[in-house]
Amino acid sequence: MWGIIGTWAMAEEGIKKAGHFLSNHGSAMDACEVCVREVEKNPAFTSVGYGGLPNEKGRVSLDAAAMDGNTLQIGSVMGVEDFKHPSAIAKDLLNYRFNNVLVGKGAKIHGLKMNLKEENLLTEASKEAWLNHVHAVEQGLSPYDGHDTVCTVAVDVNQAMAAMTSTSGLFFKAEGRVGDAPLPGSGFYVDSEIGGAAATGLGEDIMKGILSYEIVRLMSDGLNPQDACERAVTNLHEKLTRKNKKAGDLSVIAMNHKVEFGAATNIDTFPFVVATDQHLMRGKAHFRASKHSQEIVCTKLL
Amino acid sequence: MWGIIGTWAMAEEGIKKAGHFLSNHGSAMDACEVCVREVEKNPAFTSVGYGGLPNEKGRVSLDAAAMDGNTLQIGSVMGVEDFKHPSAIAKDLLNYRFNNVLVGKGAKIHGLKMNLKEENLLTEASKEAWLNHVHAVEQGLSPYDGHDTVCTVAVDVNQAMAAMTSTSGLFFKAEGRVGDAPLPGSGFYVDSEIGGAAATGLGEDIMKGILSYEIVRLMSDGLNPQDACERAVTNLHEKLTRKNKKAGDLSVIAMNHKVEFGAATNIDTFPFVVATDQHLMRGKAHFRASKHSQEIVCTKLL
Repeated sequence: MWGIIGTWAMAEEGIKKAGHFLSNHGSAMDACEVCVREVEKNPAFTSVGYGGLPNEKGRVSLDAAAMDGNTLQIGSVMGVEDFKHPSAIAKDLLNYRFNNVLVGKGAKIHGLKMNLKEENLLTEASKEAWLNHVHAVEQGLSPYDGHDTVCTVAVDVNQAMAAMTSTSGLFFKAEGRVGDAPLPGSGFYVDSEIGGAAATGLGEDIMKGILSYEIVRLMSDGLNPQDACERAVTNLHEKLTRKNKKAGDLSVIAMNHKVEFGAATNIDTFPFVVATDQHLMRGKAHFRASKHSQEIVCTKLL
Repeated sequence: MWGIIGTWAMAEEGIKKAGHFLSNHGSAMDACEVCVREVEKNPAFTSVGYGGLPNEKGRVSLDAAAMDGNTLQIGSVMGVEDFKHPSAIAKDLLNYRFNNVLVGKGAKIHGLKMNLKEENLLTEASKEAWLNHVHAVEQGLSPYDGHDTVCTVAVDVNQAMAAMTSTSGLFFKAEGRVGDAPLPGSGFYVDSEIGGAAATGLGEDIMKGILSYEIVRLMSDGLNPQDACERAVTNLHEKLTRKNKKAGDLSVIAMNHKVEFGAATNIDTFPFVVATDQHLMRGKAHFRASKHSQEIVCTKLL
């Protein structure tokens, strides 16, 4: 028995590859990386890795994290530039007892120690989008938009679990800004004895509720992943609305150690992808008229 | 009714000042800053602010965070250099809807925008300690030691709550390394409707259990702060020992909206300081023979 879940339609190719990998007895942590690398390298996905939309200075600044559900070990990098696969650095940091979270130049130095290749990550398309955005912001448009983190949670045949996230963050973010993606508990959390969860949306609001840990905590109280996702999103959405009169986008995925999964959102439609030893599934979580609902299409047996 | 709690004996002067400030109807957030600044500016305290012990490169790199319990708004800076009071930047970031967490150069840029003065933070004493440490590490000593974050949680007369942390992190840490102090949920969390908590110790292990959020979560389930602190520390200590055969230092403080407080640790002795409208207290949390205990000395009525 194995399974993997990922955020947004962009995860589909990666989830398929990771599914094949898991069916061949690959580890959950490696499967997460298989999935995330597929998204990072694809310039068509402008919120992750190569081709990611740049910050206000026109620079592509990436965040990524990895967590091993057997050891609770965390690796995380924030504000790293010039490497297509920040997830590789985050994953490598799992091997150390100290210095597991590195920011800015420190993350870069670790990537160089790993002999990762420095590359220009700004595609012509992203540069053009940035130039247009500079113009639009000058015209008074709200500068911030676009925050689709690729997140994935996996269970392997040995019941080990893992989670991974990777993002270029908010388009036009301030230099050095990080959202929830590299922050343990906010963007991701996984414990092989319970399950894992990950989040995407407005990082600044997701971290106010430590949303991924909250979902795992609810699963440890006995909730199935779907109920845990819905309850955590509803609670945070309502609390932020009550306290601050608004809640940013919150979308989450979860999977438990029994390969049950869930997803929820506070936006109209949040697509996600799941592979298990039974099915490959495209899902859509909805939040309409204050009600959670879900559509799942099994596209084929793997 | 008001109260404030801080980590380690070094917080005492700051807690006294913050207590006077709270008794004059100052806000919880400002009171936290009053306390933390007192520690940051004092070069005798070598794990925070000016005079903080440097990283492996010999540079003083600071982390700080602030959280407003009324709005759940977070401000956090990681790996910022040349400013004595990183807490001032973290607190200023509470004023924004986006870009609340800044790392490395981005945090520096924000400090400059605030017209904070750039200063050399490396004292002669810290430099000498670093040189001796380089030598000791060459002789085979384990490089990492010293991780006493100043953390504070406060309640003001309007029942608003706040939390703040500030640290120079692990002595001899890798460039760009951050621990739990600037990570929401791990190093700190506060919700004025429930209470707040903060942690100090080995950040790499504290973040494995999202320890501060876990304590607030336990308080929301009805536990008093002392029981919540003890249960959270015990659970994480046991889980890490079971999973990884070892647990790093974990020390925590908590205060709820009724100004009840608690502290717990998995080391022999963890000192903390509390001020309320009734007392100024020096406390020591102990963990001996797998049992939590506590001594509290009321030094005087404020």
